[in-house]
Amino acid sequence: MLPMRKNIAEMAGYVPGFQPEGDGWIKLNTNENPYPPSPKVVEAILAEVGSDGGNLRKYPDAGSREARRAAAELYGVEPTWVIMANGSDELLNNLIRAFAGEGEEIAYVHPSYSYYATLAEIQGAHIRTFGLTDDYLVAGFPERYEGKLFFLTSPNAPLGFAFENSYIEELAQRCSGILVVDEAYIDFSSGSAIELVKSYENVVVTRTFSKSYSLAGMRLGLAVARPQVIDALDKIRDHYHLDRLALAAATAALRDQAYLRETVGKVCATRDWFTEELRQLGYRVAASHANYIFAEPADRNGKRVYDNLFVHKILVRYFSDPLLQHGVRISIGTREEMEKTLKVLIDLG
Amino acid sequence: MLPMRKNIAEMAGYVPGFQPEGDGWIKLNTNENPYPPSPKVVEAILAEVGSDGGNLRKYPDAGSREARRAAAELYGVEPTWVIMANGSDELLNNLIRAFAGEGEEIAYVHPSYSYYATLAEIQGAHIRTFGLTDDYLVAGFPERYEGKLFFLTSPNAPLGFAFENSYIEELAQRCSGILVVDEAYIDFSSGSAIELVKSYENVVVTRTFSKSYSLAGMRLGLAVARPQVIDALDKIRDHYHLDRLALAAATAALRDQAYLRETVGKVCATRDWFTEELRQLGYRVAASHANYIFAEPADRNGKRVYDNLFVHKILVRYFSDPLLQHGVRISIGTREEMEKTLKVLIDLG
Repeated sequence: MLPMRKNIAEMAGYVPGFQPEGDGWIKLNTNENPYPPSPKVVEAILAEVGSDGGNLRKYPDAGSREARRAAAELYGVEPTWVIMANGSDELLNNLIRAFAGEGEEIAYVHPSYSYYATLAEIQGAHIRTFGLTDDYLVAGFPERYEGKLFFLTSPNAPLGFAFENSYIEELAQRCSGILVVDEAYIDFSSGSAIELVKSYENVVVTRTFSKSYSLAGMRLGLAVARPQVIDALDKIRDHYHLDRLALAAATAALRDQAYLRETVGKVCATRDWFTEELRQLGYRVAASHANYIFAEPADRNGKRVYDNLFVHKILVRYFSDPLLQHGVRISIGTREEMEKTLKVLIDLG
Repeated sequence: MLPMRKNIAEMAGYVPGFQPEGDGWIKLNTNENPYPPSPKVVEAILAEVGSDGGNLRKYPDAGSREARRAAAELYGVEPTWVIMANGSDELLNNLIRAFAGEGEEIAYVHPSYSYYATLAEIQGAHIRTFGLTDDYLVAGFPERYEGKLFFLTSPNAPLGFAFENSYIEELAQRCSGILVVDEAYIDFSSGSAIELVKSYENVVVTRTFSKSYSLAGMRLGLAVARPQVIDALDKIRDHYHLDRLALAAATAALRDQAYLRETVGKVCATRDWFTEELRQLGYRVAASHANYIFAEPADRNGKRVYDNLFVHKILVRYFSDPLLQHGVRISIGTREEMEKTLKVLIDLG
């Protein structure tokens, strides 16, 4: 009998989005970017590999210094306010480890990213969820929230709306602990809570390279926070958490904002066109600030839409959760992919 | 005032080995392999990058299935007995999270890898250390050790000796909790405790790609353990912890054992020659089973040797710890690098 911690033995584990085997799928289920990463990212990776991979025998820079500098320049903060990570998931994990011990409370909005709950289970922390009001505010949030961390996904996944900065600021004032603003999708919107980090010591903003930078395959994220928070996250992370090729990719991606704007612009244009088309088909689609939309058919039967698209080898995301089963989340692919998807939905009626 | 956990606020954080800036250094301080990785690793990385990096926009395989299969074939176990990791450090971290809660005890041998202590501090676990007897056994290890985890580095760093499997088996029988055999350097030795995993459910063997596979820059490790332990580690790890290029590199490296034998053979030959030369100079050097030696000068002043080599831009590792300050740890570089090092040591007298 192995002496496993009870919370680990009893937890289910997170199930990531389905990745189909074989070719021919239009994959609109995990919010990947349909365009390749910047050519400068590819160049940077190849330069680091070199002719014989000789660099790879050496440890990477444990401090990710060049990537931090690139991010700091981009966001107008000092490098001491930035940490790089192996996907923003690593940051969410280590934020819980820094601030919430066993039995202490963390909270998040449901529906949003359920991985917060998995991470809390690993830590043995207590989980509280808050719902949403009809006008997309946090329902029942206390005047003073005493939990250690509150995770706010903005833009929200899977619904696509974004919280206003004035409202996020109000939440920061009401949190005794840390307010984590998970901005995985913010590049497809406008604004950012990074400004609030400058005024509120308890605000942490996390970002990922998986969506807007087309680098889901490279596992990269970052956070902007006060140096005191960054220092704590630096103590908790593995000292060499990012490999040399990921670091090269991150730095090059951050420094090619023109390419980011171009691909994000294309995705947003396709999204807005597709949203209008679906509305004309009778779907209810909330305005999206992300690279996906949440689409509700007139009969409010998300499973039916999911199944019919699946038959045509178009993969979208259906959630059996009672709050979400009336629709499907559809990632925005290329214009051509979305035209094919629209055609199937038109035929479906 | 941020509500940081006390153990995090108070801990110092791990300081990785010094990485010198600028060229011209002979770097023998962090046990990197002096040879590049297998050409097949480079090929596999380039194939995954492709012409435009298009694959990188997509999530990697969350299950690392191909790499696990390659490792399972190599070690003669089922893939369910293997987990891949972002460096073996990730495994050490997650083993503590799986088995030792706040206030529970873990132990390790001192001197060995001090990062075990850092990881326990992050978790808020209690740390116990055991010394070594003169004939390199664990001093004062109880008939029945009730701690949750015992980390045994074999071959030992920085001393270079390896524990016999019969002794490791005895320790496994005496541990109520998990015995982690950290085999970071085992490819430079012979044998392995992987055989013991088949007989003892509480034995876990960890490996790294940073040393024998020349992939310190790619952050790769693996563990072999019972499926029940692997399942727990799978629940705790980030679901996409390994990027696409790291996965491609791992699989290719594991499948090119001929290259591994060739470079490991060269390192071991250089090590054995260098050991003899140092002994003739009057150094005491224990037989090493790793890609470094621990060398004690006649005056037992490790700092003097370190400082003199540093002046000649040769970087070795000096530990101020009272148990280690009488010597230096010298990583084995190329034959040419070790000849230069030897020359400086001869001149030093």
